[in-house]
Amino acid sequence: MSKNYVIAIDLMGGDTAPLQTIKGVQIAQSRHPYVQFKLFGNKDIITRNLPDIDLSEYDFVHTDKVIRNEDKPSMAIRKSANTSMRLAIEEVAAGRAHAAVSAGNTGALMALSLLILRSIEGIKRPAICTMVPTRKGFCALLDMGATLNSDPSNFLEMAVMGNAFYESITGKRNNRIAILNIGMEDVKGHETLREASDLIKNSKINENFIGYVEPDNIFHGAADIVVTDGFTGNIFIKTCEALGKWLKEMLVSSFTSSLLSKLGALFASRSLKATMKILDPRGYNGAMFVGLNGVSVKSHGSTDAMGFSRALDVAILLVQSDINNKIQKKITELL
Amino acid sequence: MSKNYVIAIDLMGGDTAPLQTIKGVQIAQSRHPYVQFKLFGNKDIITRNLPDIDLSEYDFVHTDKVIRNEDKPSMAIRKSANTSMRLAIEEVAAGRAHAAVSAGNTGALMALSLLILRSIEGIKRPAICTMVPTRKGFCALLDMGATLNSDPSNFLEMAVMGNAFYESITGKRNNRIAILNIGMEDVKGHETLREASDLIKNSKINENFIGYVEPDNIFHGAADIVVTDGFTGNIFIKTCEALGKWLKEMLVSSFTSSLLSKLGALFASRSLKATMKILDPRGYNGAMFVGLNGVSVKSHGSTDAMGFSRALDVAILLVQSDINNKIQKKITELL
Repeated sequence: MSKNYVIAIDLMGGDTAPLQTIKGVQIAQSRHPYVQFKLFGNKDIITRNLPDIDLSEYDFVHTDKVIRNEDKPSMAIRKSANTSMRLAIEEVAAGRAHAAVSAGNTGALMALSLLILRSIEGIKRPAICTMVPTRKGFCALLDMGATLNSDPSNFLEMAVMGNAFYESITGKRNNRIAILNIGMEDVKGHETLREASDLIKNSKINENFIGYVEPDNIFHGAADIVVTDGFTGNIFIKTCEALGKWLKEMLVSSFTSSLLSKLGALFASRSLKATMKILDPRGYNGAMFVGLNGVSVKSHGSTDAMGFSRALDVAILLVQSDINNKIQKKITELL
Repeated sequence: MSKNYVIAIDLMGGDTAPLQTIKGVQIAQSRHPYVQFKLFGNKDIITRNLPDIDLSEYDFVHTDKVIRNEDKPSMAIRKSANTSMRLAIEEVAAGRAHAAVSAGNTGALMALSLLILRSIEGIKRPAICTMVPTRKGFCALLDMGATLNSDPSNFLEMAVMGNAFYESITGKRNNRIAILNIGMEDVKGHETLREASDLIKNSKINENFIGYVEPDNIFHGAADIVVTDGFTGNIFIKTCEALGKWLKEMLVSSFTSSLLSKLGALFASRSLKATMKILDPRGYNGAMFVGLNGVSVKSHGSTDAMGFSRALDVAILLVQSDINNKIQKKITELL
């Protein structure tokens, strides 16, 4: 059986590695038998965590070097030689893998991906892009934290990259692009947003631009692509995750507090499951660094095996949809 | 029966005025028999909406002028003479009322409050402060949108005002102050936040300062006062409201989708109610402009009577706790 794609995986990054990352690979492998997973990690730590594992069954490369969560990106890069994260990214740069996935240090993964894969010609600032669930499906949100102080030209770049990203993975054209703001009126927000809005209105992508959206509009599915600076995007997504986590806790405790409430949960279980699914961040795990010459996907650092397998799904989907060639083509057309 | 406090109310501001504002006054009056509500509004519109009302039973002042939601603050101020919003604020400035409450145009209410009440000596930028529910109770969050680009000195002012606000309404001392950021490590966030953090660390309020918090820490109750720039604060609170609204919809639809699920909801009703209450934004309605010589409270523009009555509760609580004298005292001590 020949494998059609190769995904390079940093097994050692994240709070739950390597136990959950390995198990995530096993889950993803069963879903994607034709994809080859190439694993980078520390043999000794892995066999200590999983005594029953036979690493010879995997395409596995041993390294005892790892980038830690606490390392500053600048320091992490200096000490990055032969780390599991760097080896995975280098595999993509060398053309031996189609995508790299890591649950490790976000800043380091971003910096190393940029250093090794380089940005696409014409892109000044790659951005972190993720999917946000809405009442109508999902939207693509960027930037999630690559550039904290985005300038108007970064917003235009993000609009173009987000458009290509959304089109690649959904196949839909005529997507609606919006800027996240604190109101929908033209006068709202600060100067950078108004300049960004003017810049997009006067660009080749202006027909897709629908103006500003507020958080409520996002969840109503008013836009397909939402662009924002990296600080605001990171606060937005972390607020969603944190509130979702709390509400999930409350619901679970509501339905386990008494025998009657347990019975209640049983009676309402099918419809309740849909709500719980929306509240499960594992379903949206896997953010992509868009704008690089190669696919680099970040998994949440504290996710479990199911969540990590979702990040692998995202990487495979992005490779299958030939995302980077499409972004490159859009950039040439539109910028 | 002599009334101990007077609250001046703009009956005409907001999407649900005057029907819900009047009804909100009626609800609040039954809770606070010793408080006098002085109402400003358009007699004709009110009697058209509520044919049975007898305005002679109220302390009511007629005006046919109103500030609309669409008016820009600068324009609203120019045309503000004798509007219900302005009259309510002027009542506070003249010493005839202890607080003003409006569900109208936020920008106009902010600008008019600042123009008429003036900021407290020593305060450069009044801020909008609101209560955010947490697993342990609530925290005070500011700024919610008065100053979009806050500088480090604004952060210090907010820390002092938030501290006084929290102490006034809870009676608790030794409150924990934090800055909202995208990570807890010292290196996280942009330059303004690091400078703000250094400034607070070197101020007289440094013992209360616990550093940075992320959204998840807020909901865990890690801080009593959380300071952020007005843009981020507004996005944070709107994200909470929007996601809460959606989840509430999903839950209601989960529990009304079938006979079995309705039965389930009945069985789990007590514990479910606690979750629904957390999701009900009316419970937290009423944001204060802190840093002014007078209490000015903003109600959500689209709330109902119950929500508006909560904003009146907040105004009364702030007056009872002598909030502005306490802020003034703290400012003198700490800045």
